[in-house]
Amino acid sequence: MREVAIVGVGMTPFGELWNKSLRDLFVEAALEAIDDAGVDRIDSLYVGSMSPGLFVAQEHIGSLLADYLGMAGIPATRVESACASGGAAVRMAVLDVMSGASDIVLAGGVEKMTDGVDTTFALATAADQEYEAFHGITFPGLYAMIARAHMEKYGTTREHLADVAVKNHEHGALNPKAQYRNRITREQVLQSTMVADPLRLLDCSPITDGAAAVIVTTVELAKKLGKPVVKVKASAQATDAIALHARKDLTRIPAVEKAAQKAYKQAGIGPEDLNLVEVHDCFTIAELVVMEELGLVERGKAGEAVSSGMTRLGGKLPINTSGGLKAKGHPVGATGVAQVIEVVLQLRGEAGERQVSGARLGMTQNMGGSGGSCVIHILEVES
Amino acid sequence: MREVAIVGVGMTPFGELWNKSLRDLFVEAALEAIDDAGVDRIDSLYVGSMSPGLFVAQEHIGSLLADYLGMAGIPATRVESACASGGAAVRMAVLDVMSGASDIVLAGGVEKMTDGVDTTFALATAADQEYEAFHGITFPGLYAMIARAHMEKYGTTREHLADVAVKNHEHGALNPKAQYRNRITREQVLQSTMVADPLRLLDCSPITDGAAAVIVTTVELAKKLGKPVVKVKASAQATDAIALHARKDLTRIPAVEKAAQKAYKQAGIGPEDLNLVEVHDCFTIAELVVMEELGLVERGKAGEAVSSGMTRLGGKLPINTSGGLKAKGHPVGATGVAQVIEVVLQLRGEAGERQVSGARLGMTQNMGGSGGSCVIHILEVES
Repeated sequence: MREVAIVGVGMTPFGELWNKSLRDLFVEAALEAIDDAGVDRIDSLYVGSMSPGLFVAQEHIGSLLADYLGMAGIPATRVESACASGGAAVRMAVLDVMSGASDIVLAGGVEKMTDGVDTTFALATAADQEYEAFHGITFPGLYAMIARAHMEKYGTTREHLADVAVKNHEHGALNPKAQYRNRITREQVLQSTMVADPLRLLDCSPITDGAAAVIVTTVELAKKLGKPVVKVKASAQATDAIALHARKDLTRIPAVEKAAQKAYKQAGIGPEDLNLVEVHDCFTIAELVVMEELGLVERGKAGEAVSSGMTRLGGKLPINTSGGLKAKGHPVGATGVAQVIEVVLQLRGEAGERQVSGARLGMTQNMGGSGGSCVIHILEVES
Repeated sequence: MREVAIVGVGMTPFGELWNKSLRDLFVEAALEAIDDAGVDRIDSLYVGSMSPGLFVAQEHIGSLLADYLGMAGIPATRVESACASGGAAVRMAVLDVMSGASDIVLAGGVEKMTDGVDTTFALATAADQEYEAFHGITFPGLYAMIARAHMEKYGTTREHLADVAVKNHEHGALNPKAQYRNRITREQVLQSTMVADPLRLLDCSPITDGAAAVIVTTVELAKKLGKPVVKVKASAQATDAIALHARKDLTRIPAVEKAAQKAYKQAGIGPEDLNLVEVHDCFTIAELVVMEELGLVERGKAGEAVSSGMTRLGGKLPINTSGGLKAKGHPVGATGVAQVIEVVLQLRGEAGERQVSGARLGMTQNMGGSGGSCVIHILEVES
């Protein structure tokens, strides 16, 4: 089994990018990643995208994007696992290199969400259509139920939730590619428009256009490219029912715990060894539940941990230094890839104003829907 | 690199299955494949599906289907490459087993197409939205241009095209799971409703509901399961521009040639060694062009070869013994998997009335859109 590394990263700024199409966005990110890696070819391509069919009436984007990248001919496949599509694309690239079928693989993610479709309808197709979406519930409502359950069971407060958003905007302010670079206060979150009680507007990640891409290859080849070698120590995926009613405890997301256990085992590490983590904060409550499933804090204690400053830059374990989905933005298919990019930049010491000093080991946690799928990567920079 | 085998196959009947949903169809095929293989677990799952988002407003089907199969927890990912989604799912399963990440993988494909959506619009998203679909052309028109060019350049006749449909209905009549089991005559094809000149209704594959699944594992494990061992000798994929205007010669589908060259090299064989082939006959002209790209006949001679009976059951090289997309049906995401199933059944000697006697080596060719992507598998039964 070949050891795998990430050798190049590229992403567009995230935001409402009215003058760029899906193909423009992807090619911009992919070329930046190829340039960053310094490779002269790509053997195959995976692209994570949740719903280009519903957003821009375009399926078959693996071939389309390989062509627009000037690489028509190479194997190119779209991978989908709702909001975890990007993480799944990176994992496919890792398996492809491990298998020996390809040596240099581009894993990208893209979503063009602002171009005039019913975005809420499209996103709701990540929930169970027959048991959830058809009856009118969408993701803010689903995560609101999770939040309410967590508050009831553990005493998590509205202020804890708000502090997640405040922290992620603080970090986003330091990320030149983030959609929102404004700092916000706890009071602003608490006074923002109610979306689905208890979640307010500033608890929710935004609608975003954007693309991200990484180059995956063998550690052997990575060593020849002259940059710090960032190894993929774990690439793990797990699933669960996508319908919330099938979950025994609304405060739990078993797919995250399952993927994390596999990832820690693959990497031979525990949560205490990590220097930074990017988690899937599609809503503020998601960051709290995920922290607990990853074993970063005791169950029920995530809110307190965030409010204590533990997960801020400079804290014991910085979480979402990129700004997270909340501030960096959430172009669904690109998110999992962008998380990997943030960790690679941190491990290489190239994260600028938001650098975690001495970062050597980082993790990404990307999930689909209300937690029906989860993909986790653990990355380590070689000394 | 581990050697890979197909050890179990299952599929629903193909047709207009009004009383079954996408999840019902998939689970039926998957359980049949698991039962056929005699395995007691699945390590991971891939499902090929072109557009469940547009057809039934449901994305995130990897997790959904793993759950409905009673296997929530395992890694499960949807794979999309338009009409080549099924072949791509099989290839992902092969890479997953080769990589060592999984030992037993289920690769399935499913499409629920008859449930009340604008099917032609949904299918057209496999073409280039900005340069083709937006301007009103759909697949019958695109393949009609290919047919017209082939007739002009090589003297291919309307009768040659009709004979493809006649042959595939002859084969389909012998397949209990085919959508159409009626034999048709050349005259019926020539007198059927004009769709896009020169293609008539009986030149076109139908709209179909259905699912198919195979179990992929190591040759080592396959040998313990007590059935003839069907090895995956090649799993190759290639792409091209998805827009027809980008093709230098309308009579060519370069992605097919490229994937075939790779596949023959991987398997260490040539086209002359094959005992049967399943090709992607979404329209009759597609079967002819593909035969030429695969090197099964001289360029320009495919029509004559079909009319001579060479590719009928009992001929020198039977093509589409299953009935092909034309008669067996074409539930888009399931098609590539169903092709693999036909070859496995033939190699095991389990194809009943349509058995190719002494079949030892077979190939499947699955493609997306007007040939923007192609996945080829070569399978061999161990003596």
